[in-house]
Order: sequence, then C-alpha cells, then structure tokens
Amino acid sequence: ENEEAMERVERPGVATGLAWTPMGGDILFVEATAMPITSNRPSTLIVTGQVGDVMRESAQAALSYVRAHAAEIGAPPDFYEKHDIHIHIPAGAIPKDGPSAGITMTVALASLFSGRPTRPLMAMTGEVTLSGKVLPVGGIKEKVLGARRAGIKTVLLPERNRKDLYEDLKPEIRKEMHFHFIKDVKQALNLALEPPRKHSAEHTETANSREKEAPGQKRIRKVEPIAPSMPA
Amino acid sequence: ENEEAMERVERPGVATGLAWTPMGGDILFVEATAMPITSNRPSTLIVTGQVGDVMRESAQAALSYVRAHAAEIGAPPDFYEKHDIHIHIPAGAIPKDGPSAGITMTVALASLFSGRPTRPLMAMTGEVTLSGKVLPVGGIKEKVLGARRAGIKTVLLPERNRKDLYEDLKPEIRKEMHFHFIKDVKQALNLALEPPRKHSAEHTETANSREKEAPGQKRIRKVEPIAPSMPA
Amino acid sequence: ENEEAMERVERPGVATGLAWTPMGGDILFVEATAMPITSNRPSTLIVTGQVGDVMRESAQAALSYVRAHAAEIGAPPDFYEKHDIHIHIPAGAIPKDGPSAGITMTVALASLFSGRPTRPLMAMTGEVTLSGKVLPVGGIKEKVLGARRAGIKTVLLPERNRKDLYEDLKPEIRKEMHFHFIKDVKQALNLALEPPRKHSAEHTETANSREKEAPGQKRIRKVEPIAPSMPA
Amino acid sequence: ENEEAMERVERPGVATGLAWTPMGGDILFVEATAMPITSNRPSTLIVTGQVGDVMRESAQAALSYVRAHAAEIGAPPDFYEKHDIHIHIPAGAIPKDGPSAGITMTVALASLFSGRPTRPLMAMTGEVTLSGKVLPVGGIKEKVLGARRAGIKTVLLPERNRKDLYEDLKPEIRKEMHFHFIKDVKQALNLALEPPRKHSAEHTETANSREKEAPGQKRIRKVEPIAPSMPA
Amino acid sequence: ENEEAMERVERPGVATGLAWTPMGGDILFVEATAMPITSNRPSTLIVTGQVGDVMRESAQAALSYVRAHAAEIGAPPDFYEKHDIHIHIPAGAIPKDGPSAGITMTVALASLFSGRPTRPLMAMTGEVTLSGKVLPVGGIKEKVLGARRAGIKTVLLPERNRKDLYEDLKPEIRKEMHFHFIKDVKQALNLALEPPRKHSAEHTETANSREKEAPGQKRIRKVEPIAPSMPA
Amino acid sequence: ENEEAMERVERPGVATGLAWTPMGGDILFVEATAMPITSNRPSTLIVTGQVGDVMRESAQAALSYVRAHAAEIGAPPDFYEKHDIHIHIPAGAIPKDGPSAGITMTVALASLFSGRPTRPLMAMTGEVTLSGKVLPVGGIKEKVLGARRAGIKTVLLPERNRKDLYEDLKPEIRKEMHFHFIKDVKQALNLALEPPRKHSAEHTETANSREKEAPGQKRIRKVEPIAPSMPA
Ligand SMILES: [Ca+2]
Ligand SMILES: [Ca+2]
Ligand SMILES: [Ca+2]
Ligand SMILES: [Ca+2]
Ligand SMILES: [Ca+2]
Ligand SMILES: [Ca+2]
Ligand SMILES: [Ca+2]
Ligand SMILES: [Ca+2]
Ligand SMILES: [Ca+2]
Ligand SMILES: [Ca+2]
Ligand SMILES: [Ca+2]
Ligand SMILES: [Ca+2]
Repeated sequence: ENEEAMERVERPGVATGLAWTPMGGDILFVEATAMPITSNRPSTLIVTGQVGDVMRESAQAALSYVRAHAAEIGAPPDFYEKHDIHIHIPAGAIPKDGPSAGITMTVALASLFSGRPTRPLMAMTGEVTLSGKVLPVGGIKEKVLGARRAGIKTVLLPERNRKDLYEDLKPEIRKEMHFHFIKDVKQALNLALEPPRKHSAEHTETANSREKEAPGQKRIRKVEPIAPSMPA
Repeated sequence: ENEEAMERVERPGVATGLAWTPMGGDILFVEATAMPITSNRPSTLIVTGQVGDVMRESAQAALSYVRAHAAEIGAPPDFYEKHDIHIHIPAGAIPKDGPSAGITMTVALASLFSGRPTRPLMAMTGEVTLSGKVLPVGGIKEKVLGARRAGIKTVLLPERNRKDLYEDLKPEIRKEMHFHFIKDVKQALNLALEPPRKHSAEHTETANSREKEAPGQKRIRKVEPIAPSMPA
Repeated sequence: ENEEAMERVERPGVATGLAWTPMGGDILFVEATAMPITSNRPSTLIVTGQVGDVMRESAQAALSYVRAHAAEIGAPPDFYEKHDIHIHIPAGAIPKDGPSAGITMTVALASLFSGRPTRPLMAMTGEVTLSGKVLPVGGIKEKVLGARRAGIKTVLLPERNRKDLYEDLKPEIRKEMHFHFIKDVKQALNLALEPPRKHSAEHTETANSREKEAPGQKRIRKVEPIAPSMPA
Repeated sequence: ENEEAMERVERPGVATGLAWTPMGGDILFVEATAMPITSNRPSTLIVTGQVGDVMRESAQAALSYVRAHAAEIGAPPDFYEKHDIHIHIPAGAIPKDGPSAGITMTVALASLFSGRPTRPLMAMTGEVTLSGKVLPVGGIKEKVLGARRAGIKTVLLPERNRKDLYEDLKPEIRKEMHFHFIKDVKQALNLALEPPRKHSAEHTETANSREKEAPGQKRIRKVEPIAPSMPA
Repeated sequence: ENEEAMERVERPGVATGLAWTPMGGDILFVEATAMPITSNRPSTLIVTGQVGDVMRESAQAALSYVRAHAAEIGAPPDFYEKHDIHIHIPAGAIPKDGPSAGITMTVALASLFSGRPTRPLMAMTGEVTLSGKVLPVGGIKEKVLGARRAGIKTVLLPERNRKDLYEDLKPEIRKEMHFHFIKDVKQALNLALEPPRKHSAEHTETANSREKEAPGQKRIRKVEPIAPSMPA
Repeated sequence: ENEEAMERVERPGVATGLAWTPMGGDILFVEATAMPITSNRPSTLIVTGQVGDVMRESAQAALSYVRAHAAEIGAPPDFYEKHDIHIHIPAGAIPKDGPSAGITMTVALASLFSGRPTRPLMAMTGEVTLSGKVLPVGGIKEKVLGARRAGIKTVLLPERNRKDLYEDLKPEIRKEMHFHFIKDVKQALNLALEPPRKHSAEHTETANSREKEAPGQKRIRKVEPIAPSMPA
C-alpha cells in the first residue's frame, strides 16, 4: 500500500507533502532535480506541474532559504551556481496553488543540495517564511486522513496547527501515526533529512544518482520511527 | 502503410507517441534537434507545434531528466551546454496539450543526446515525473487502436494503465501488437533506444546526420520484435 | 503575547510594519534575505508574498535607496553585486499592496545590507520617496491599535501623520507606546537599527546567520525604550 | 508581368511562396537578411510582417533546420552565431499565419546562409517538420492559380498534395507550369537554390550585397526550366 | 509654505514639475538616483510611481537625450554604463501619465549625471522630443496656479504655450512669478541647473550625497531670481 | 512657416515623413539617436512615441536594412554594436501605426549611421521591405496636401503610387512641389541624404552634435531643389 510513497523518495531531492482537494486530502511529491551547468552562465529555477503564482512564490522562497543556509544544510557553497534547479510536482496536468507546500519544497531542495534523502513514509505541510518560520495552514483534518490512506507513518505539522489535530481528529488516528509540531525550518530539516554523508568531489554526480545502485546492493532503508514528540 | 512511421524515426532525436483526439487515436512524432552553439552563451530550449502549457512543461521536465542522467544515457557531459535544443511536434497548426507525451519527449531527447535512434514501429504514451516515474494517462483504448491503424508493432504503456488494456480492448488486438508496461523512464529507454554506438569526436555532427548515408548503403533496420513482456 | 514580534526580527533583514486591513490594523513582517552569488552575473531582486504593483515599486525604490546610500548605512560597497536579494512578506497567500510599507522595506534592506538587526517591538509605516523623504499614509488609527494588540512598544510614523495620532486616538493609547515622527529615512534608520558592528571578512556569512548562536549564548536583546520624541 | 517576381529574388535570402487568401491565391516573398554581429553576444531571430504564432513557429523550425544542416547546405559553420537573422514577409500590415510557408522560409534561410540565390519564377508551399519532412497543406487550387497570375513558371508542392493538382485544376493549367512534388526539404533545396559558389572570406559581405553590381554588369539569370518531374 | 519645494531639490537628481489633475494643478517631484554598478553588466533604467506608458516613454527619451549629450552637460562619459538609473515620481500610489513631464525628467537626469542641483522654487512643464525640441502641453492655467500655491517663483513653459499664459491668466499672476519660454532642452538646462562643479574622482559618490553636509555647514542656496525673459 | 520643418532635421538622424490622420494629412518627424555604449554588452533598439506593432516592426526592418548595408551607406562597421539606438516619433501621446513610415525610418537611421543629415523641406512616405523595395501606401492625396501646408518643397513617393498623384491631385499642386517616385531604398537615400562627410575618429561624437556649432558659424543649408524627376 505504501510502496509508492517509499519508492518515490528514494533519491535525494524528493519530499512528500500533504494536499487538500475538494475530494479530500492526499499526498503529493515535490521532486527537485539539479542539472549540472558545464559553462559559465547564471543558473535558473524551473517550476513545473501547473503551479499557481502563490505556490511558485513558495518555491522561490524555499530556494532562497536553502541558498542562504547552504553551509548549515551541508551543501557545497557553489551548488546553486553550478546547477539549474527544476522543481516539479506531479501530476502535471492538475493545477495546484497555495502556500502550504512551502515546507515540503524547502525540505526537497535541502535534500537535493545536501545529497541527504528524506525519510520515507514521512509527510509534511506548512507555509514557510523567508526567515524559516513555519506558519499554520488549513485542511489539517483532510490532510492527515489522506496521509493515513497513503500509508504515511510520520506527519510534520506547524506548531500553530497543533490544536487542529486535537479538535478535528479522533484519538485513534492520532495513535496510528507519529506527529511532530514544528516552529521553524530547522526542526523540519532535522526530522526529515537522513544523516549527512561526507562531502566528496563526486557530490554533484551522486546527488541524482542513487538509483544506480545495483539491485542486489539496494540500501536498506530502516524506517525506524523517529521518537514521537507528542504524547498523544 | 507503416512506411511513414518507419521513415520518420530514421534519425536520432525522433520518437513516436500516441495521441487522443476527438476523432479517435493517432500517432504523433516528437522531433528533437540539436543545433551546435559555436560561441559562449547559454543554450536554449525551443518548443514548437502549437503546444499548450502542460505539454510545454512536459518538455522541460523531459529535458531536465535527460540532462541529469546524461552519463547513464551515454551522452557527452556537455552536450546540453553546446547545443540549442528544439522540440517540434507536427502538424504545426494543430493545438496539442496534456502530459501524456512526456515519455515520448524523454525518449526523443535521450535519443538525440545519445545518438541512438529509436526503434521503428514502436509507439508510447505516459506522463513522466522529474524523478523518472511513469504515471498513467487516459485514452488507452483509442490510442492503441490508432497505433494499429498506423502500422505500429510495439506499444509502451504505463504499468498503471495495464488494466485498461484488458478491460477496454478485444483480445485479438492484444495479440496483434506487443505491449510493454513500464514503471520508470529507464525501462522505456532500454526498450526504445537502439544499442549505444561508441562515442567519437564526431558525435555532435552525426547526431543529426544519419540521412547522409548514400541510398545504396542504407542501414538495414531489423525491426525484430522485442521479447514481449506481456503474455496476452 | 509579543513573543512572536520579538522572535521574528532576531536576524538582520527583518523589520516590522503596520498594515491596514478591512478587519482592522495588524503588524506585518518584511523579510529580506541575501543569497551569495558565487559566479559573475547580475544580481536579482525577488519580491514574493502576493505583492501588488505599487508595493513592488516600493521594494524597488527601497533597494535603490539602500544601494545609493550603502556607505552611510555601513554596508560593503559591493554587497548588492555579490548577492541576490529576496524580499518576502508573509502570509504568502494574502494579496498586499500600497506604498505604506516603503519605510519598513527600506529599514529591512538597510538591516540586511549592514548586518545590524532592527530593534524588537518597534513597528513603522510610511511611504518613502527615492530621495528618502517620508510621506504620510492612511489608516493611522487602525494601524496603531493593531500595533498595540501585537505588543509593539514603539511606533514610527510620518511627521505629516502627527495630527492623525492626536485627532484619532485616545490619550491613554498615546501613553502606552512611544511614538516617533519622521521626515526622512535617515531618522528611521537611526531609530530602528541597532548599532553597527565592525565589518569583517565574514560580514556576508553573518548577515543571515544570527540563529547559529547556541541557545545558552543567546544574545540578550535589551528592549530599552528609545527616548520618546513626543511629549504626548 | 513577372518582372517583380524576378526582381525580388535577385539577392540571396529571398524565396517566393504561395498564399491562400479569402480573395484567392497570391504569391508572397519571404525575405531573410543577416546582420553581422561585431561583438560577442548571442544572435537573435527577428520575424516581422504581422506574423501569427503558427507562422512564427515555422520560422523557428526553419532556422533550426538550416542551423542543424549548415554543412550540407554549404554555409559557414559559425554563420548563425555571427549574424542576427531577420525574416520579414511583406506587406507589413497584413496579418499572416499558418504553417504552409515553412518550405519557403527554409529555402529563404538556406539561400541566405549559403549565399546561393533562389531560382526566379519558382514558387513553393508546404509545411516542414523539424526533421525536414514536407507535409501537405490546403488551398492548392487557389495557390496555383495565383502563381500563374503572377507569372510563376515552376511550382514546388508537397508530394501528398499531388492528388489535389489533378483533382482540382484543369489539364491546361498543369501544362503551363512545371510542377515538382517533394517529400523532404533536401529535394526543395536542390530544386530551388542556384549552384553553390565557392566560399571565400567575403562570404558574409556578399550574402546581402548582390545589388552592388553595376547596371551594365547585371548578371544574366537564365531561367532555364528545371527538368519537369511530372508528366502532366 | 514653499519649504518642502526647496528641500526636495537639495540633492542633484531632483526637478520640480507641474501636473494637471482633475482637482487643479499641482507640483510634482521627479526624483532620479544613480546606483553604482560594481561589476561588469549592462545598466538598467527603473521607473516607478505608477507611471503610464506615455510617461514611461518620456523617461526613456529623457535618458537617451542625456546619454547622447553627456559631454555638453558635463557628465562623465561612462556615467550611464557605471550606474543603474532609477526615476521615481511620488506619490507612489497615484497613477500618472502623459508626455508633459518630459522636460522635468530630462532636467532631473541631467542634474543627476552632472552633479549640478536644480535651482529651487523653479518648476517646469513640456513635452520633449528625442532631438531636444520642447513641444507645447495642456493645462497651462491650472499648472501655473498650482505652482503659485506651492510657492514656486520661476516657471519654465514651452515657447508654443506662451499665448496660453496671456490668454488664460490674469496679469497679476504673471507679475508674481518669473516665466521663461523655451524652445529646446538646452535652454531649460541653462536655466534650471546650477553652475557645473569641477569633476573629480569622487563625482559618483557626491552625486547622491549632498545630504551628508553637517547641519552647521549647510550650503546657502541663494534663490536669486534668474533674469526674467518675459516683460509681463 | 516652414521654419520648424527646417530646424527639426538640422542634425543627422532626423527625417520628415508624411502622416494620414482623420483630420487630413500632416508631416511627422522620425528622430533617431545613438547613445554610445562604453562597456561590452549587446546594443538595444528603443522605439517610443506610442507606436503600434506594425510601425514597430517597420522600425526593426529599417534597422536591419541599415545594419546590413552599413558599408554602402558610409557607416562604420561597428556603429550598431557600439551604440544603443532610440527612434522616437513625436508627439509622444498620439498613437501611431502602419507601415508607411518605413522609408522615413530607414532614411533617419541611415542618416544617423552615416552622419549625413537629411535634406530639409523634403518629406517622404512608403512601406519598405527588408530587401529595400519600396511598396505603395495609402492616403497620398491627404499626405501631399499636408506636406504643402507644412512648407515642404520635395516629396518622395513610391513608384507604384505615381498614378495616385495624377488621379487625386490638381495639376497646380503638382507644380508647386518636386516629386520623386522611388522603387527602392537606395534611390531614397541618394535623394534624401546630404553628401557623405569623410569618416574620422570622431564620427560617433559628431553624429549627434551638429547643434554645437556656434550661431555665427551656422552652416548654410542650401535647399537647392533636386532635379525634378517628374515633368508634371
Ligand atoms: Ca493567483
Ligand atoms: Ca480546527
Ligand atoms: Ca493551460
Ligand atoms: Ca478503463
Ligand atoms: Ca495596481
Ligand atoms: Ca485624521
Ligand atoms: Ca494562434
Ligand atoms: Ca482536393
Ligand atoms: Ca497607454
Ligand atoms: Ca489657451
Ligand atoms: Ca496591431
Ligand atoms: Ca487613387
């Protein structure tokens, strides 16, 4: 059931978000890819997936945050200048908008820049400010139910949405998944990114190439539950 | 009958897609060409053929995928920076849109970048994510019937469209053509591209110049059916 | 109550503004971030937060002012050319417009360029001309009441709005907060920016990285009230 | 009568097309000019003549084809990078659109790039794909009648429009002019361009300067009919 | 009363214009600022103040005039290439349009480029052509009355508006202010700019920094009336 | 009466055109200016005067023609790359459109590039193709009457408008002015431009600076009528 959710985040640069739709909540994948620039020119940001202007601004803010905090995240200082960045949110024909994918975009880009994959079966929602504060969003109930349907085990929510979880969802739901309430991007990055790998000269090549691993060598991804921060 | 479908993919950079139209399914050709850049400037992507915004985004995502996986595909690392890329989908006056040409665009670009032609009489449909996952699309019945009318022998479909083939098409159709169900771009590239040729200094020149072969030397294209993956 | 207003301006580049909305006044945060450019290309200004054209022009004018007065502000002369600048005004989905955030944007950028944080619990409003004159704005009554609700202690208002404070607000309000009336940007910068720190080679790095301070070393921010300029 | 049609194509870079209008068919001239770039910057393509988006895309595709086949055409490899290209279709105030000028644009650009003028009193119509295939177009009857009125002696038509000539035009018309049916751009270039001249260092200068010939030295243009390919 | 009109033009780059509004005439300030470019890139022109397309074209024409006449004006030859130019017309939220601020913009830019401030209490109106001719404009009566209300002492009008002054305004108004009728930009620059200061290496720095003068050293601005050109 | 028409074309870069308006014909001035580029960047074309898209395309075609024929015109080969070009057509608030100013724009630019002023009291109309052919235009009667009212002595008309002069205007008008009928741009340039001056290192400086001549040295402009080409 949650096979797809695990497979999609296998490579660095992908994070799992939560979407509200008129038909209920769902998960979505934010895919970020870096294409090496081999000449001397400005890098570009491409955002695709029929993304509206508010969400496009979220992508810009996420990129600016990650660029400004490259060192903390463990990214090479010139990663941005040496790559074109492409953010895509499938499905490509469904219009999407709103600020609540901000945290997912930021995590996806931090994952891409650092080469650290995101933890599988973890989904998140929240608006992000340029300073890294996480602001509350709507649709918490539907999003959490959608995450459960998709087999998600851990959910990151804005601290200021904590009350919505208690008001709007039954206690048993809250016991089935782990919930973390976050105030700033740093907390989300600590929870969502796997430990940093040592930087080597091949960083750029490896960022997009985890899939090269031979099937027999497939890295075991221990989906060990992160210590729950919420007594529930 | 299938003469045109064979001729059109003779040179690297062209792949055969499947289109749904109000008048039924049809094949379409995605043509990709690389124009050498002889000065020091950023390369550009041109997309023509009255292409709508969703399909244009598919082209961007296809290019990003191929750039990020240049080494695996067998493309020179600086192929992108040294060429302007033009993707054209005839007929030029008919508006086209939607995400389902994503796999065809990706194959056409991989063919162009690698210099490996696509196999003739093979057509494909499927949305592609930036990470290379193949997502299901609509109109399978009409597209398969259109492919048959055009003389296509092999069809690549998204794995998640497998059920549509069984539900919506008669068994005899399924016996007339080979069907492959694909989950990611790699499978499609393995099926659709002819074996890599050794790279030489002339790679760029030869990429667009297969047609230079004298008539008498015309390369025999063995349209050997790929081992069918579907028992039918 | 005023915890958020204090936290948000902890790093250089953030200033607190006053907004008029149909539901009454409120504070808003102008966040400015600088992303280092590691290659040789023009810097760019990004403005996000669903900002209308008048407010976008205010951002441009604020940037031009700060660039033209870089030396006075204590900014490195090439700070602009070496950074992309991003101004974001949360919340990202709420449309905003008008010229009255001009002074807040100018202070935020001056803070970013100089590395001097803005004083906490101080909010401001006013249109700014390119020459640095501060012009009067509307909604003074609602803005001041909104600042009080948010726990703001000091308010900067255009000199030509002085009469509105006396006409439209009760005396006890005027006693609860400190008010400064300003004619030009210089006065605002003197009031709003903390003292300059010595410039060092690491200026750029530190501009966005105050948050790196270990919790135990947290800088005490003395919110000492600035000598009130208004007898009230 | 056909004096204008001869004069207009005297210099390399001009080709004669066929247009369908509500008032009947007519000829049109595609004029291409190259302006030398004396500094180091990307070249640009300018298209004027109130040209619609489909026709504009035809111009882009024509340029991409000619760039990708520069060597075959006999153009210097850096011709594109060293010139801005301007395509103009008079009359400048009449809106024009559609894909059927594709072959005329391709011939005009190939003429410009190679310095080989186009044969006089020869007109053409046909959509062109990026791979150089010639696709059928509409309005054959009106276009052929318009060509006759303008004094045209030779007409190039898409192979797949051959049947329209027989169905829609009287035999005597087919005897008055020579008709060629073409499947790809190469055939059109062989028919439409005069023999290549040797390349010299002055190639660029001479490309636009045939008109410099003193009147007394006016080159005799032998409008020798090309061997008719159609028995009629 | 005229204190603001004097203060606003204290630094080079500001000129006082005349505006017609449905509520009568008024003065407006054209503010021009130059921001040094410390890297190697094209300079940009920014125009803000909710400026319509006709007025925006006036700004472009004013800049072209000043660039083409840099030597006559006493500007360093590379002033343009070494600065971004920003023209702002407060108030920033009021839409403005029309060609009649052309002369004011030209004077403001000439003031900025040359480092010569404009004479205080002098206002002007007139369309300017690219060759520097001054064309007549509308609303002379309202503009002159608005200038008087703002404390303006000298007014520059297009020569071809001379008759409007006599027809539409009472003689006593014409005696209260000095009027100059101008045919070309040169006359306006001679009247409006203070004498050139010697150019020094610091020209750029001083252009925007007259305000640095300590209060006690404030330059006395002798508002000596220019010899009136009109007997009145 | 014709004083303005003489003054406006005193400097190189200005040519006099003919306009048709609902109120009758009139003359208009096409002003072209070159602003030196002192750094290494692409030159730009600016077109102002509320110019519609057809007329804007005429400006582009005129520039392309003059760039491609720089040597014949007597312009330095790198004139374009070393200058930004600005074309302005006063009055700046009146919308203008159509192709008939093509010849005037071409003459104005050729005058600018070559430093050769245009002959005074000569006006012209005609569409121009990129190859330099002059096509007929409308409104000949009104334009000629407008030219007479403005004191014009010589009029250049497209050859294919010759019949309109005879059909639509009384013989006495045809005797009052000289008329030339032109088929291509070269004829117009020969008629409209004063003899070339020797090129010197100062060419660029002098192009825009004829006005520097001291009043006492004012160059006598002999408005000697060009030998009439029309017996009338
Ligand atoms: Ca929106
Ligand atoms: Ca709730
Ligand atoms: Ca769409
Ligand atoms: Ca089905
Ligand atoms: Ca607006
Ligand atoms: Ca009030
Ligand atoms: Ca269209
Ligand atoms: Ca037919
Ligand atoms: Ca307008
Ligand atoms: Ca009047
Ligand atoms: Ca139009
Ligand atoms: Ca007539």
